[in-house]
Amino acid sequence: MATTNSALEPLAIGIDIGGTGTKFGIVDRNGNVLFSSEISTKKHKEVETFIDELYESFLPLIEKVGGIGRIKGVGVGAPNGNFYTGTIEYAPNLPWKGIVPLAKLIEDKFQLPVTLTNDANAAAIGEMMYGAAKGMKDFIMITLGTGVGSGIVANGQLIYGHDGFAGELGHTIVIPDGRLHEGTGKYGSLESYASATGVRLTALEVLEKRSEPSLLREVPTDKIDSKAVFDAAIQGDKVALEIFEYTGKILGLALANAVMFSSPEAIILFGGLTKAGDLILKPTREHMEANLIQVFQNKVKILVSHLKESDAAILGASALAWDK
Amino acid sequence: MATTNSALEPLAIGIDIGGTGTKFGIVDRNGNVLFSSEISTKKHKEVETFIDELYESFLPLIEKVGGIGRIKGVGVGAPNGNFYTGTIEYAPNLPWKGIVPLAKLIEDKFQLPVTLTNDANAAAIGEMMYGAAKGMKDFIMITLGTGVGSGIVANGQLIYGHDGFAGELGHTIVIPDGRLHEGTGKYGSLESYASATGVRLTALEVLEKRSEPSLLREVPTDKIDSKAVFDAAIQGDKVALEIFEYTGKILGLALANAVMFSSPEAIILFGGLTKAGDLILKPTREHMEANLIQVFQNKVKILVSHLKESDAAILGASALAWDK
Repeated sequence: MATTNSALEPLAIGIDIGGTGTKFGIVDRNGNVLFSSEISTKKHKEVETFIDELYESFLPLIEKVGGIGRIKGVGVGAPNGNFYTGTIEYAPNLPWKGIVPLAKLIEDKFQLPVTLTNDANAAAIGEMMYGAAKGMKDFIMITLGTGVGSGIVANGQLIYGHDGFAGELGHTIVIPDGRLHEGTGKYGSLESYASATGVRLTALEVLEKRSEPSLLREVPTDKIDSKAVFDAAIQGDKVALEIFEYTGKILGLALANAVMFSSPEAIILFGGLTKAGDLILKPTREHMEANLIQVFQNKVKILVSHLKESDAAILGASALAWDK
Repeated sequence: MATTNSALEPLAIGIDIGGTGTKFGIVDRNGNVLFSSEISTKKHKEVETFIDELYESFLPLIEKVGGIGRIKGVGVGAPNGNFYTGTIEYAPNLPWKGIVPLAKLIEDKFQLPVTLTNDANAAAIGEMMYGAAKGMKDFIMITLGTGVGSGIVANGQLIYGHDGFAGELGHTIVIPDGRLHEGTGKYGSLESYASATGVRLTALEVLEKRSEPSLLREVPTDKIDSKAVFDAAIQGDKVALEIFEYTGKILGLALANAVMFSSPEAIILFGGLTKAGDLILKPTREHMEANLIQVFQNKVKILVSHLKESDAAILGASALAWDK
């Protein structure tokens, strides 16, 4: 549309709700995040006050792009977000329990059409439109953050399942009778090992079990996280390396199982843990291959998302709004 | 086409290749298996002699329906059968190693178009066209036979994956470092527990570990199989009941993981092990529910295929021929 002033082209709102914080922004059709910001999720015991703060925070951004008239719609990614019903249902990592009619609440407040899905599904759509999965018809997106999320694309379509909740690889059981997941009450799920929380727990366990010296012993217990483990590992700390090896072993096993399920062209990893690079990717690849039967070996790419972390979730969520 | 004699309506050939035997038949559009038969798979060290015997066995059947002119095409279900390339690749349970151009070999011999897929994928298509999954858009078919196969349908489409090999749930690892699978060399896969072979191995293990009396101790070791365990279990034999409980525990865990992946409306079970009825279904359901996070609980049906076992695989395979 050469005759239209590009400043007046429609825009979309993308909102990514995580267990700790919520990122949001205004995005154009080419995947440029024009303005973005973040608020705390977990401080809001009630979803209503969360929506109020979200709306207040959006007002100046909407003002900057020329008013609400330019916004075509809102896309939201949230844990246990249901594409079909627009509700968040029993999300273990969010402060709001039961069934929350999130799309309806945002629609009423913003007076805009709202599309909701699982946060990792939104990330998968973002990768397919703007990122590492461009042009792929079969891939799996795995987000390694506070939790572990996933979005599965097969035959070029996102798999929502019959009820809208497909793609919860983080909750699949990888070690029967393994580590307790506080949020779900289940034992041995992928998320209880391969998330930021999981790496911290592994570090604490290994430090207690081993007696050898480690740089991590100089870190106060409450400061032990995947960043601290990374810092120690790049200095060659054996205990830190063992923590990544163990995490990669479990993640690799889970990826092998996912590959034997939907046989993707690639697995796209995203999130804090991927910053450890080959420290985590090398054992993950090795253990994935070791658990695959021959027909799947040496052909599935493990890629790290190259979208800016702060943008990717917003981009993915906003992509939902264009489709509506 | 009211003016056409129904005796002249086109027919399809369905062939189901299993590790032990190969079932085949001629099927009409309504899913009636007009003629069927079976030959041994495992006695053929070379695929060429297998194709020769298959063709010779088909000739009288083709004769009976009025000649090759009525046959529209051939659908084949086989372990590790690739829908895209028409090849069987590295099938651990078949006598032919490496990559076998099966569709091409049958095409040359029969002079008919051939479509090939995974045997469990073929079964899934059969259930969707004629069986328990009629009208469903999201379901998982699991075949519990000599091995454990699966076919996954999402958004109304079979998931083939980028290379045509998706749906190998039987090879996913459920017990890390668990029981060795002789065919694949992997440890702890679903198939090494929930197949006919797996139940036999569990029975032998439990009988050795336990000292209490059991009806199974009167069965010669080489005759211990899921049928023998069933016969003992219905007489209240505690050891036999424990074998089904253990099998159901592992199958239930695997089903929970599959549900959290693609969130199907139902899981359709098929094959010898399902004949044990609630002895296997009850622990399977219980352990599936116990491993599901809340959002998936109490909504996935576990159904047993109601297609005649001898027909189902042939029906599924033949359904492929109609699509071509």
